Amino acid sequence: MEAILDAAHACLSSDPDASIGDIAKAAGVGRVTLYGHFPTRAELVDAVVTRALTAAEHALAVIDLSGDPREAIHRLVAGSWSLTADAGALVAAAERSLPAAQIRAAHDGMLVPVGNFLERGRSEGVFRTDLPTSWLAAVLHSVVHCAATEVDAGRLDPGDAASYITKTVLASFAPS
Amino acid sequence: MEAILDAAHACLSSDPDASIGDIAKAAGVGRVTLYGHFPTRAELVDAVVTRALTAAEHALAVIDLSGDPREAIHRLVAGSWSLTADAGALVAAAERSLPAAQIRAAHDGMLVPVGNFLERGRSEGVFRTDLPTSWLAAVLHSVVHCAATEVDAGRLDPGDAASYITKTVLASFAPS
Repeated sequence: MEAILDAAHACLSSDPDASIGDIAKAAGVGRVTLYGHFPTRAELVDAVVTRALTAAEHALAVIDLSGDPREAIHRLVAGSWSLTADAGALVAAAERSLPAAQIRAAHDGMLVPVGNFLERGRSEGVFRTDLPTSWLAAVLHSVVHCAATEVDAGRLDPGDAASYITKTVLASFAPS
Repeated sequence: MEAILDAAHACLSSDPDASIGDIAKAAGVGRVTLYGHFPTRAELVDAVVTRALTAAEHALAVIDLSGDPREAIHRLVAGSWSLTADAGALVAAAERSLPAAQIRAAHDGMLVPVGNFLERGRSEGVFRTDLPTSWLAAVLHSVVHCAATEVDAGRLDPGDAASYITKTVLASFAPS
């Protein structure tokens, strides 16, 4: 079961359109065995993405968001960016296979610590309060995904991504 | 042909998972006729999205981007936002059916006038020059799509969207 998920993760990461046949072959199991665990391709993609998002949630949970919020956002961006970059092709597979609402729901667990961090920055006068916290969290998420798309399109050097995201987000979050 | 595209646009806008059967029924044609024009659902979605993007490109082309770049960005955001809001469900259908690279390529025509506008703002000292123009254009695009997602999730009032986008983008584009 874990071997199937590992193989599916690897296959979908290198090709978002990887077929059930490709994944069964990589996992070293027959298609019938694979279908016994996951009756449809969408269920398999769902399981892979859910597992990756849970791992990402745990990785985000250990990022130190204490201290100066402007400094903390560098750590948050660096951590979020590396998770998103690793999951880039997997995200493409998910977007093609799963309803958008389900992808959003899977991200919601990650939004809580980020929301709390943004609230603290607002209460300390470091982040703007003329726009709601939910909007600032959504903008952070969008700009991180924007960088993944730009890297994928060859318009952004992966080594520049975290710096670009941080400069953009810090400017847009500053009190006006 | 146009009637099929009109019906497909309407069906996919209200339900990104609308089937070929739903669309044929709405167009008042048989499935065989529809398949005669579009052998696969993906080809039909592609034709609908390409037509919508061409219309959006024309609508963007008539937005006045002259004068003070900060003022012009209000007009650009208001215009982009209303096009994106109208196309929201269609975008979801496209993301599930078409390769991401194809969606990006279809948007590329719209990026040229926006890129030229951003270059002018940079040369006038109104927009930052420490990040590339392609990145600023990508951020603008992402924040507009972010608003569409937030409205869809019920976290953002559509009436607030253009103002939130403009405040966020203008702050992130200001010279540091």
